[in-house]
Amino acid sequence: MWDLEFPRPGRTIRRTPRRPHKKEKPVEAALETPALIVDLDAVRRNIARMAAHAAEAGIKLRPHGKTHKSPIFGRMQLAAGAVGLCCQKVGEAQILVEGGIGDILVTNEIVAPRALARLADLSRFAKIRTVADNAQGIDWIADAAHAAGVEIGVLVDCDLGHGRTGVAEPAAAVALGRQIATTPGLRFDGLQAYHGTVQHVHGFAARAAAVAAANAALARFIAAFEAAGLPPAIVSGAGTGSFALQAAAGYTEWQCGTYIFMDKEYRDIGDEAGGAYQPFEQALWVLATVNSTHGPTRVVVDAGLKSLSLDGGLPEPVDLPGWKFAFGGDEHGKLLRDAAHAAPAPAPALGSQLRLLPGHGDTTINLHDAYEIFEGGKHVATWPVAARGRVK
Amino acid sequence: MWDLEFPRPGRTIRRTPRRPHKKEKPVEAALETPALIVDLDAVRRNIARMAAHAAEAGIKLRPHGKTHKSPIFGRMQLAAGAVGLCCQKVGEAQILVEGGIGDILVTNEIVAPRALARLADLSRFAKIRTVADNAQGIDWIADAAHAAGVEIGVLVDCDLGHGRTGVAEPAAAVALGRQIATTPGLRFDGLQAYHGTVQHVHGFAARAAAVAAANAALARFIAAFEAAGLPPAIVSGAGTGSFALQAAAGYTEWQCGTYIFMDKEYRDIGDEAGGAYQPFEQALWVLATVNSTHGPTRVVVDAGLKSLSLDGGLPEPVDLPGWKFAFGGDEHGKLLRDAAHAAPAPAPALGSQLRLLPGHGDTTINLHDAYEIFEGGKHVATWPVAARGRVK
Repeated sequence: MWDLEFPRPGRTIRRTPRRPHKKEKPVEAALETPALIVDLDAVRRNIARMAAHAAEAGIKLRPHGKTHKSPIFGRMQLAAGAVGLCCQKVGEAQILVEGGIGDILVTNEIVAPRALARLADLSRFAKIRTVADNAQGIDWIADAAHAAGVEIGVLVDCDLGHGRTGVAEPAAAVALGRQIATTPGLRFDGLQAYHGTVQHVHGFAARAAAVAAANAALARFIAAFEAAGLPPAIVSGAGTGSFALQAAAGYTEWQCGTYIFMDKEYRDIGDEAGGAYQPFEQALWVLATVNSTHGPTRVVVDAGLKSLSLDGGLPEPVDLPGWKFAFGGDEHGKLLRDAAHAAPAPAPALGSQLRLLPGHGDTTINLHDAYEIFEGGKHVATWPVAARGRVK
Repeated sequence: MWDLEFPRPGRTIRRTPRRPHKKEKPVEAALETPALIVDLDAVRRNIARMAAHAAEAGIKLRPHGKTHKSPIFGRMQLAAGAVGLCCQKVGEAQILVEGGIGDILVTNEIVAPRALARLADLSRFAKIRTVADNAQGIDWIADAAHAAGVEIGVLVDCDLGHGRTGVAEPAAAVALGRQIATTPGLRFDGLQAYHGTVQHVHGFAARAAAVAAANAALARFIAAFEAAGLPPAIVSGAGTGSFALQAAAGYTEWQCGTYIFMDKEYRDIGDEAGGAYQPFEQALWVLATVNSTHGPTRVVVDAGLKSLSLDGGLPEPVDLPGWKFAFGGDEHGKLLRDAAHAAPAPAPALGSQLRLLPGHGDTTINLHDAYEIFEGGKHVATWPVAARGRVK
């Protein structure tokens, strides 16, 4: 079908003279695009800021590794005082442990035998905990611990109103806690208490009310466990959108993830003063190249649904005031000038690069194989998104 | 932070007796989940069926590799008569050429110098064509061809009303064709004429009208090129949703991609008789595991936004009549029983596996590292999604 002889006779032109052209030289960009670019200085400030918030509240920090999927960023968080990391899948935990993270909480119900075997195996190398919301599931974790000859710490997953996983009734949660505590090979370590949707409630007052309801639910769980003689050593939860409202809710550790990079979705939930929610700096963008131009009001870039996730809303062309992004398929993004804008930027030139602020960071990062790291405004390194795609 | 000594003294339990439990044994599944599973028999039938459609129309087939991202599937298509493949990015083309595909059309404007250098390098190993919609862009392709000492075939990208890339005016397109034809190192090979949005117009009559307008636009482009003495050797375009309506529109080759696997988005556009659009069989699903159960009306599975794309609408639990899928975050999918359904299936058990029909195949496949291949109903192989994430 093809051969490795090259150049092919008859097809190859050896440095034919170029047709002279006076057009602009191509942009000699440092990076090929689409590229996931990170401002490492901003990341460092975000990590320090969250560490300070947690220290002030007297709460431990266990950042969620599902955001960055990277032992390097995880170790930066640990160096700033975090007690360990969270992740969602055993596959992510395997990458994080291999990368030197010694304390992991898998915040998702693991029930498949082979996944549990991998979880148990990891317990030979690191302190591993997971969560459970089902008596049968607890027995299966115990079976895996038994087979591997290890002890696994288990947190009872409490549903604070999220309506996803977790036990909704405190009495049922206590029964599971008792089962864990009396099962050889398992260790009852406390409660998983994460409410995902309150993070994203728009408007500070509405969000505060939603978080207050979740906090009240958590109080009932904690009281039930204490009354049953099973005071939870760990109460783990909260996120970037809610941690400040959960400083006195009984949490012993916070699971915030997105704060390390921020994204448009979190920026847009709104702060107390009615502005954008920006307790942390935006530190991550997708760099794209203009590959098609159409007059003053439309250009096309080389980043589409395979480089930017859709679930957090549309990306924003931060370098181009007065322009909006529209998805144009798997590999195309359209940038359209906003007719209503008072002073829109001129249309960018063919071949120029610009930054797009992702709607949702976690799922956008998951589309890329590498972070392109900038320090002091200069590109200094390429780091792998090591646990990208580790959904098993 | 951690050490490799294991088991750790004091933490490890050596085969402690299990607490006896009578609960169900865990499901001993062949595959870990979430997994991208493929019915290879259906794929073979889809490939043969599209080859027959193209042969009947007297049109060559150049399937779009952005769907499967796999030299293996590409070679199956070539073995059935396809003349080559399309792809969107040079990075995809590199994987396909390495995998033995000798004829590639990159259906996207490549403008960055390093990407063009990679494209030119590929031309030493395979027949490579790309598309252009800009005079400056054509000069840059020529520069890359000159630097590598190769010839690159270029198609003028014609906008048939899609409003994304491509030249909208036939006269401007002819001018670009003339530029390509007179530029050393480039070869004018014809027209790229793909209209993405007509593929997805719901309702057969509406879609037929939209395709007819695109066909009329294409006729004007072809006439202009013929009048200018530049009859296009190749007219490449059409897709899974429109090919049957473009058999007499002047195309010399069809670029259909999704037909190899199908997806929910294409199924739902509707056919001539008012039913589902199913000229091909559904051949690809995401297999997920139930990891949390909540009575008769809600279960949670281990597949969320990192295993199933959102842009084609919600996935469908095909093994569970009367249930609907709802995204529950990066790694969670909620299955909710439809209260209005006459005979819903009973809630699936913890640990059981079920298939989800993806909304959009291309972007869902892009989330996975491997295809799990079934033949005769049995799992027979794991094939890489070799060009997954090759967005550069």
